[in-house]
Amino acid sequence: SSKLGPDYVLRPLHLSDYKAGVLEVLKDLTTVGDISEERFIEQFEYMRARQGEYFVIIIEKIATGKVVGVGTLLVERKFIHECGLVGHIEDIAVAKSEQGKKLGIKIISALDFIGKKVGCYKNILDCSPHNEQFYVKCGYSNAGFEMTKRF
Amino acid sequence: SSKLGPDYVLRPLHLSDYKAGVLEVLKDLTTVGDISEERFIEQFEYMRARQGEYFVIIIEKIATGKVVGVGTLLVERKFIHECGLVGHIEDIAVAKSEQGKKLGIKIISALDFIGKKVGCYKNILDCSPHNEQFYVKCGYSNAGFEMTKRF
Ligand SMILES: CC(=O)N[C@@H]1[C@@H](O)[C@H](O)[C@@H](COP(=O)(O)O)O[C@@H]1O
Ligand SMILES: CC(=O)N[C@@H]1[C@@H](O)[C@H](O)[C@@H](COP(=O)(O)O)O[C@@H]1O
Repeated sequence: SSKLGPDYVLRPLHLSDYKAGVLEVLKDLTTVGDISEERFIEQFEYMRARQGEYFVIIIEKIATGKVVGVGTLLVERKFIHECGLVGHIEDIAVAKSEQGKKLGIKIISALDFIGKKVGCYKNILDCSPHNEQFYVKCGYSNAGFEMTKRF
Repeated sequence: SSKLGPDYVLRPLHLSDYKAGVLEVLKDLTTVGDISEERFIEQFEYMRARQGEYFVIIIEKIATGKVVGVGTLLVERKFIHECGLVGHIEDIAVAKSEQGKKLGIKIISALDFIGKKVGCYKNILDCSPHNEQFYVKCGYSNAGFEMTKRF
């Protein structure tokens, strides 16, 4: 896409992105752990089987063929809002070496485009307070607190 | 369940809960709008077809046969945390006339029980600051902000 510049391509996750380093990019966000290629494929197929539910996109750096950014939209169906749809933006990460190039904002706008297109009445996401300003730049507003219970 | 007392039963959502008032209870949380019984059934079947993904539970008041509480757990599959699962607690509501009877906390603990049992590494939810203390009583901690973009 022209907005992304000639050095990068934004596209859906492929099976081959296991080797292109998608999990290494996610390690910048949080714990990933050891995931075999077989387990990766299994989870990928789970998501792919759920048409219209999971949208995982990546940014590839053309020169290296490596994944440098990733993000997911999970579309939830509700009863409220006339059986409305809500898009959950999850697991946004950009490789450290590629930060400051506005790749994160490109991922969010692609996921916003998808959310709108599939009919979500809103997209939501959770973030730490120090990432709030990034999401404000993406057009998001603070809507309250995330609460969590770990098992 | 004994914890719930003899006047209420906690169980999965049934198709017949359309007539037992589940949507009226949700109106206490937010906009519900007009939902025909046909549309309700369609959304119910969408969720039911997704084994292990959507768990919608209700509390019924035995004396009236009416739904007085409702809550949903949506189980998300991720790559992070060794292809981990996260439970999203959504659309928690208790009928105004039944508030102050600890029914909300019963709904949350049932959804926590399910989340743990299906293997989620955590449950999360979004709430307004004025509901934070309720979720702290349920064993939840503040983990950051919810950001939203409406379409
Ligand atoms: C917008 C965004 O990317 N938010 C992520 C969320 O999607 C992810 O699931 C979580 C993992 O945190 P954890 O490792 O502490 O569970 O971190 C952030 O909240
Ligand atoms: C724990 C809980 O029940 N949180 C709910 C959330 O599940 C629901 O989707 C939202 C609807 O708000 P809206 O009508 O403004 O979209 O309200 C609250 O955040």
